Amino acid sequence: MHAEDLPPDALRQRADYYQRIGSRHMTPLWEVLGALVPPHPRSPAAPHLWRYAELREQVLEAGRLISAEEAERRVLILENPALRGQSCITQSLYAGLQLILPGEVAPAHRHTQSALRLVLDGEGAYSAVDGERTTMRRGDFIITPSWTWHDHGNLGDQPVVWLDGLDIPIVRFLDAGFAERSEQRSQAPLRPEGDALARYGANMLPLDYQPRPMDPTRVFVYPFERTKAALVGISSGTPDAHHGFKLRYVNPATGASPMPTTGAFAQRLPAGFETKPVRCTDGTVHVCLEGEGEVRVGDRTWRFQESDVFVVPSWHALQLRADRDAVLFSFSDRPVQQALGLWREERQ
Amino acid sequence: MHAEDLPPDALRQRADYYQRIGSRHMTPLWEVLGALVPPHPRSPAAPHLWRYAELREQVLEAGRLISAEEAERRVLILENPALRGQSCITQSLYAGLQLILPGEVAPAHRHTQSALRLVLDGEGAYSAVDGERTTMRRGDFIITPSWTWHDHGNLGDQPVVWLDGLDIPIVRFLDAGFAERSEQRSQAPLRPEGDALARYGANMLPLDYQPRPMDPTRVFVYPFERTKAALVGISSGTPDAHHGFKLRYVNPATGASPMPTTGAFAQRLPAGFETKPVRCTDGTVHVCLEGEGEVRVGDRTWRFQESDVFVVPSWHALQLRADRDAVLFSFSDRPVQQALGLWREERQ
Amino acid sequence: MHAEDLPPDALRQRADYYQRIGSRHMTPLWEVLGALVPPHPRSPAAPHLWRYAELREQVLEAGRLISAEEAERRVLILENPALRGQSCITQSLYAGLQLILPGEVAPAHRHTQSALRLVLDGEGAYSAVDGERTTMRRGDFIITPSWTWHDHGNLGDQPVVWLDGLDIPIVRFLDAGFAERSEQRSQAPLRPEGDALARYGANMLPLDYQPRPMDPTRVFVYPFERTKAALVGISSGTPDAHHGFKLRYVNPATGASPMPTTGAFAQRLPAGFETKPVRCTDGTVHVCLEGEGEVRVGDRTWRFQESDVFVVPSWHALQLRADRDAVLFSFSDRPVQQALGLWREERQ
Amino acid sequence: MHAEDLPPDALRQRADYYQRIGSRHMTPLWEVLGALVPPHPRSPAAPHLWRYAELREQVLEAGRLISAEEAERRVLILENPALRGQSCITQSLYAGLQLILPGEVAPAHRHTQSALRLVLDGEGAYSAVDGERTTMRRGDFIITPSWTWHDHGNLGDQPVVWLDGLDIPIVRFLDAGFAERSEQRSQAPLRPEGDALARYGANMLPLDYQPRPMDPTRVFVYPFERTKAALVGISSGTPDAHHGFKLRYVNPATGASPMPTTGAFAQRLPAGFETKPVRCTDGTVHVCLEGEGEVRVGDRTWRFQESDVFVVPSWHALQLRADRDAVLFSFSDRPVQQALGLWREERQ
Repeated sequence: MHAEDLPPDALRQRADYYQRIGSRHMTPLWEVLGALVPPHPRSPAAPHLWRYAELREQVLEAGRLISAEEAERRVLILENPALRGQSCITQSLYAGLQLILPGEVAPAHRHTQSALRLVLDGEGAYSAVDGERTTMRRGDFIITPSWTWHDHGNLGDQPVVWLDGLDIPIVRFLDAGFAERSEQRSQAPLRPEGDALARYGANMLPLDYQPRPMDPTRVFVYPFERTKAALVGISSGTPDAHHGFKLRYVNPATGASPMPTTGAFAQRLPAGFETKPVRCTDGTVHVCLEGEGEVRVGDRTWRFQESDVFVVPSWHALQLRADRDAVLFSFSDRPVQQALGLWREERQ
Repeated sequence: MHAEDLPPDALRQRADYYQRIGSRHMTPLWEVLGALVPPHPRSPAAPHLWRYAELREQVLEAGRLISAEEAERRVLILENPALRGQSCITQSLYAGLQLILPGEVAPAHRHTQSALRLVLDGEGAYSAVDGERTTMRRGDFIITPSWTWHDHGNLGDQPVVWLDGLDIPIVRFLDAGFAERSEQRSQAPLRPEGDALARYGANMLPLDYQPRPMDPTRVFVYPFERTKAALVGISSGTPDAHHGFKLRYVNPATGASPMPTTGAFAQRLPAGFETKPVRCTDGTVHVCLEGEGEVRVGDRTWRFQESDVFVVPSWHALQLRADRDAVLFSFSDRPVQQALGLWREERQ
Repeated sequence: MHAEDLPPDALRQRADYYQRIGSRHMTPLWEVLGALVPPHPRSPAAPHLWRYAELREQVLEAGRLISAEEAERRVLILENPALRGQSCITQSLYAGLQLILPGEVAPAHRHTQSALRLVLDGEGAYSAVDGERTTMRRGDFIITPSWTWHDHGNLGDQPVVWLDGLDIPIVRFLDAGFAERSEQRSQAPLRPEGDALARYGANMLPLDYQPRPMDPTRVFVYPFERTKAALVGISSGTPDAHHGFKLRYVNPATGASPMPTTGAFAQRLPAGFETKPVRCTDGTVHVCLEGEGEVRVGDRTWRFQESDVFVVPSWHALQLRADRDAVLFSFSDRPVQQALGLWREERQ
Repeated sequence: MHAEDLPPDALRQRADYYQRIGSRHMTPLWEVLGALVPPHPRSPAAPHLWRYAELREQVLEAGRLISAEEAERRVLILENPALRGQSCITQSLYAGLQLILPGEVAPAHRHTQSALRLVLDGEGAYSAVDGERTTMRRGDFIITPSWTWHDHGNLGDQPVVWLDGLDIPIVRFLDAGFAERSEQRSQAPLRPEGDALARYGANMLPLDYQPRPMDPTRVFVYPFERTKAALVGISSGTPDAHHGFKLRYVNPATGASPMPTTGAFAQRLPAGFETKPVRCTDGTVHVCLEGEGEVRVGDRTWRFQESDVFVVPSWHALQLRADRDAVLFSFSDRPVQQALGLWREERQ
């Protein structure tokens, strides 16, 4: 029997009852069960594509309005159009575009939130993580795991722009966030550039290093040069019908995702290749690093080209077509869902 | 420089800019950074205690207003007083009180959400999980892992009440929920009662059973009789200053929590014992199974007695005192936080 | 070309060469390749059955010839008939029968080697492991993990006999053995009997206990009473054609074998049930705890009855038939082979 | 009381008894306990160094005596001087020098035993593993995990020599060896050279690849060029007093050793650097890839130079001194000992 079929007396009786128990901080499950336990995901997030041409213009204007120092981090948050005011691009992830101008420093701090950077534009900046700097080059995937000190600086003569991806909504949802500022504006380098990659990223590990399964990687940079070479190296065979040539970034000390809250992927689609529709429960942010093409998300379609950013919410079918050889970077909360036994994918 | 110290022109310029980028689904991080990345957790949830005497009265009234069949699950959700309308007791967890009357059936369904039951009141009901029934006795901790078929029934002559704990907010946050109803109202038993406990819960396992790390336990009932015996069995030594005698329920095939999203604990406090303050990042729901005493959460204090339920939000200091020998059950999202490297505890 | 077909000159030339390189500690692989890399296992061990009636008589005679104190451990090693002089029952495992007489003590020591005990005969003895005693009852499976202090004593008035199983050959093969004697003849009890089982063996674990994957269990006794109840509890269905009703003992904090070098199993065969032939690469020692029947190993056949011990070498087909309801205990190096990716089983 | 202090009658009585029980395949533990459970490892293996100059001369002579085809594998086994006739360099490991002449093929087979190759001399050969070839270059570390098809060939015009390391004694000890020959003499390439390294060795992994903890790596070649770069890359700091700059090769999909039975290491010692003595329970085979110096093992001392091979038995103190910048490769059964909780190291 649906509630609307109840006699008016019964309805009134229930309403009275709901009010009485409401004052004691109780509420009836049966009025909301369908919404709480839906038959399949109905994400409140919307698909969207941000053109880099516009993003760049706006973020450069931010550079004229506020300094990196004043802003602490001069970032434009990409807010999901259906989740305005929540500082998120999907329910669980944050994305933003960060600008650092020649001579500027984004001062050292650390926080529970894990961050990734994907370098989009300009040369001469560095990112420093726990005492080691790495030069930021287009396409480089750089991470600052939870509670690592980090700062950024621009030693060159061009504006440098990158995409930030953070798990801010996850940490907020779990009420587990801590943060502190460093007394050092920039961290003093403790090790030369390249040390972490040599030590942890050459299919070898230090003798006594025994990471726990959820430890993030000490490899904090995945240079695009290597990623591109790997994508080309696996391209002799047939592309996967749903994913083309796609690899996931890993912590080479565990095989898990680089950071426990965020998975990241690199994907190559040969010119003319079109993927079959696939949907999965991890809402995903994509960035085009090379090439151009078309993306369909549910019933929306966009052209994409270099540095455009688009978001595919949970359980929305995704199809990609490359018009020129394309390389895409993407990230999502997939490792969280997999750790919790929740992740599903449907290849159509 | 604080924004309020800016000259009016600059303020206006920024406001214009914010509006312009807002229309393109961007927003400035620097206006919200402090809130997004707080120095320590500031949970929006509030501490609260629900007296079982009142809960019981209300849930029995629900029994007169609606049938189990109509309700599908006749449950009063315990809503956190500071999070009304969100169907949650902490940001990540749901709790409710379920009633099943003699002769009733809560029909078979399954969903991505994981559930736990803690039996509080009455005899004669059973819970069935994937084809095996277990008789529900006070204090029994029963689980229905993600995507397992389950139904409940009352073969006795008393109302039976239990506490439900689910990860509904987690699955909602991750947009990963699926559900379906069974064509069977009650599952036909495939195995006799006790089979799972014999097969998976006697410090032995089937020859060929190789669970993955995040698989939930096949032991779907932890009888209170055994839990009590274990708590008494470890009580010869000195109680831990912050926790008394406390054990965590585990999946004995992996050592992990029984279900990947929810940790559960049993705790014994001898009469007269008072714990030192401790705070942790996992907001926790407690139920008193035996004894009585006092609980302090932050600056709030309550007396607690049998079957009372109270919630301690993240990073709120908790202190417990037993006036009579007390046994407490509790649950939280600790395994999620630990899997993500986020969990912290501070023993004061 | 086979070596025997070579012309005499070539043979002589090779022989000379072999001698020359032999003096430099080199030898030709091609003369031994077939033996080093056989097409399938050809164990040098032989199947054998020791009747308990004889074992008991001999071990009691040992009790008259030497004291437990003088012997340190008064044990008759069961030597594989095809591996005499090597103190082993398979190439990798040691088994022996230990006797402790009323009033005697087997003094405290510890060693790298892991040991298991299966109690066969008599009452009143205890085994102490790292400060906790357990009373030894027929069928109890008791372990002393690597490097744990242990001693045994007999407080009763009967001779007590048990089977010891150790990984002595494994530790010897790996050159990794350490040992030391305690200054205490018997360990002073640090915890009451039953503490470990309550703390680690009730499908719960201490709050802060985080074992590594290869850590042995802290549950050092698996009482036969529980094992029997579990075997009966799973017997409602159809027995496995090759194994009957069979469970493996596990470390309930990890799901792995109780100790990393040794797997142990309990098995129930209903009266009249006969298993189909099965062979596996782990040579296995069996003990009959209840019932009687017939065992076939390759082309050998024996009757077995209570407390008889028999060994099945690697890759020998095993068939069991119970004439009365039978319970068998068994142990092998299976976890070693599984950890190394070497274990195979063939169900025929 | 020592046996030698017993009265003659008692001695005789015991001897009679030992003979009687011996005929029933029993033997007294107390006569051998000290040997079975030693206070610390007393390896029967001896330290030894083989000069490459001699090895090369002998293996080239083997090339004149027998073809690769006839030999199946033309290898000179390096036999530990104290373990002659056992085809092993330590109790658990096999090492040999393999030669393949221009135009020859070592035909395709597979076996349970895992193998590693360290290329020492010559150019133009390849090793093929499960359908992918890799060109063998000096210093390359190449593996053929358990049960992978493999063959080798020499397409160049020089003799090519490498060191083989296998776990033959481990598999023999566990009675777990299987082998078969392929019908193909050489495997047909299924993938282009470099595919595995791109797919599994670039700090990325295929989307759906989920290895189990003991799975060997799909990266079957660790090019020396990368190893050398990593060793140089970590050399900015202070060398470890006992190990210099030392890394362990890993499976970048798990962080474990490349193969479950064998650990492998690369080590750089700057000119003039001398390590402090260290001993460990894993007997280890070393090869000098660059430089020269002196090695002390227990009370033995040797000069070493390029391609010399030396073995350090369990629990023998090792000291190394580089007279020129040295790079050493080494391998041992360390992952076996670690998986079993047996490995110990003592830094002096």
